[in-house]
Amino acid sequence: MKRREFVGGLAAAVGVTACAQEPADCGDSAAASAETFEWSCVTSWPPKFPGLGIGPENLAQRVEAATAGRLRIKVYGGGELVPPFEVFDAVSRGTVEMGHSAAYYHKGKLDAAQFFTAIPFGMTSSELEGWLYYGGGLELYRELYEPFDLVPFPTGNTGVQMGGWFNKEINSIDDLKGLKMRIPGLGGEVLRRAGGTPVTLPGAEIFTALQTGAIDATEWVGPYNDASFGLHKAAKYYYYPGWQEPGPGLETIVNRAAWDSLPPDLQAVVSLACQAVTSDMAAEYSNGNAESLAQLARDDSIEIREFPDDVLALLRTIAHEVVTELMADDARSAKIGEAYFAYLEKASANSKITELAYLKTRDT
Amino acid sequence: MKRREFVGGLAAAVGVTACAQEPADCGDSAAASAETFEWSCVTSWPPKFPGLGIGPENLAQRVEAATAGRLRIKVYGGGELVPPFEVFDAVSRGTVEMGHSAAYYHKGKLDAAQFFTAIPFGMTSSELEGWLYYGGGLELYRELYEPFDLVPFPTGNTGVQMGGWFNKEINSIDDLKGLKMRIPGLGGEVLRRAGGTPVTLPGAEIFTALQTGAIDATEWVGPYNDASFGLHKAAKYYYYPGWQEPGPGLETIVNRAAWDSLPPDLQAVVSLACQAVTSDMAAEYSNGNAESLAQLARDDSIEIREFPDDVLALLRTIAHEVVTELMADDARSAKIGEAYFAYLEKASANSKITELAYLKTRDT
Repeated sequence: MKRREFVGGLAAAVGVTACAQEPADCGDSAAASAETFEWSCVTSWPPKFPGLGIGPENLAQRVEAATAGRLRIKVYGGGELVPPFEVFDAVSRGTVEMGHSAAYYHKGKLDAAQFFTAIPFGMTSSELEGWLYYGGGLELYRELYEPFDLVPFPTGNTGVQMGGWFNKEINSIDDLKGLKMRIPGLGGEVLRRAGGTPVTLPGAEIFTALQTGAIDATEWVGPYNDASFGLHKAAKYYYYPGWQEPGPGLETIVNRAAWDSLPPDLQAVVSLACQAVTSDMAAEYSNGNAESLAQLARDDSIEIREFPDDVLALLRTIAHEVVTELMADDARSAKIGEAYFAYLEKASANSKITELAYLKTRDT
Repeated sequence: MKRREFVGGLAAAVGVTACAQEPADCGDSAAASAETFEWSCVTSWPPKFPGLGIGPENLAQRVEAATAGRLRIKVYGGGELVPPFEVFDAVSRGTVEMGHSAAYYHKGKLDAAQFFTAIPFGMTSSELEGWLYYGGGLELYRELYEPFDLVPFPTGNTGVQMGGWFNKEINSIDDLKGLKMRIPGLGGEVLRRAGGTPVTLPGAEIFTALQTGAIDATEWVGPYNDASFGLHKAAKYYYYPGWQEPGPGLETIVNRAAWDSLPPDLQAVVSLACQAVTSDMAAEYSNGNAESLAQLARDDSIEIREFPDDVLALLRTIAHEVVTELMADDARSAKIGEAYFAYLEKASANSKITELAYLKTRDT
């Protein structure tokens, strides 16, 4: 309840006086506060894109406010400074200090990173955050990125996504055969094995591909982001649930040397801001999806449908095979995957009697 | 309530003067950083209690680190400085600068505050955070607390709770009649109208009351907190879901004058830390509940059971009546409740096709 003590005040005064004469002798906090940093943050998202792109913008603004401008971060949309999928390399090399992306974009060079974003039929956002922050996941995440001189911070999550927009009805597993769908990563591989043709397209090309019939279907995110792309004007059926991405976690990555250059208080602010943005982005999606879905539900030209049970059962079986093979082929994926699935077993038993049981009685 | 004393002001003035000679070495923020604050935070929880009590401890540690010690917060367990349920008054009066509590404890003096914690059959944590941060809820929260000189910050959530521990089987609505259960607030009123006898007991007295048969049942939180109280040693049946508290939000409250005394960068740190702790506590509960449930599931002396559908249906009908009456009796509850339920309608439509549909296909 005391605000400021005499000795503290005096020490600060002495420190500041010394500062004028001997910058190197500035008292700890005075010296730290005199040093300023200007960082660049490259991202994999269109500039200021709802949710995904707003997250790093909020991060930058809040870090600047909390440090009184001692750490300023300029955020770049995908392609403005480096291409969307080269965020990892640019930060690893130290071309820029910071990036905001999704770990599964590093597939190919670092397959095991996918476990930190999303696995088909895997963890929801709250399960993933339990694993990362309290269940040992973050240690594995840091260990995996360490050889690349990167320090990862979980930063944001879209929540459970939608299954996607379709111009063909999916009434049975036969309807997956020949289906040409924009669906990247592990989900795409699952579709391929189910008889479909997965396609990878950047977000900006999805609408036209769907509208012209170049693809039959696409998944993107959920109502909030999908409506902003106008996907409801290019397809008739909106399927759920998003089995392929049940709660993808996003990441801030910081170049190791840049991180080490920050005084401890600025490191603490960055760490706080990343975790605050995790909560904030979840809230933005929760609200944005609810609002956008309410609008879509009034649109007579579309139908919102649940995937048939047998389709989901098949996709789930195949997803298990795909992830099992990934773990068999790659030692890092095996190590992280084993920890992931051991955690998921406990977490899903809990989700079943909490979220699932509650929503079942409330909403059906 | 003033924080800055004469010597502090003098030191800052000296600092600024010194800086004027060497602007390159001591930026504007050097003056701000010389000022320090020591706050007390009273809470409604046992000291360092898992989840609930760890949240404010984390808040204090992370604020201190992020401000290089310029804002130090000492956290007190319930009863250490003020009784658990007098947090609101103590912070409102300015006896202390900060508190961590749950808004529904202010029932009686401020019934409408309950909407910011939990409503039976109401919002989950992600829906509540969507409403608070992006759906207009936080503005209503601030407006409600303004006459009490309090600034509220959502800080933590336990997630969906459990229905509670019972020494009587609940097979039908008749089994609620005469049931003596520790269940406070709106949930207690719902039980009373269903024929039961709700009892209010502080956490520390629950175990003995249950073990001696003074009560037939109790709700507390969920596996993580319940196991730490040993409730599984005092009752046989563990029922779900926690219809009475489907995602109770917790709060940090700051005395208005204390808040206004902080420079903007420290205000920004406190705001960041509260939102970061929201994410962190959710992760702690997600992990703690999963781990504790796995242990409880191996205990042959207990049975984990779902409430029968007709019991849940009755409780839901009564909950609706109870909340409707609350809104009819109190203008502030009417205003906030209308916003709450309008939001819930949209949010639950979204949860149904995302979380619910996904968990249904994954876990059943």
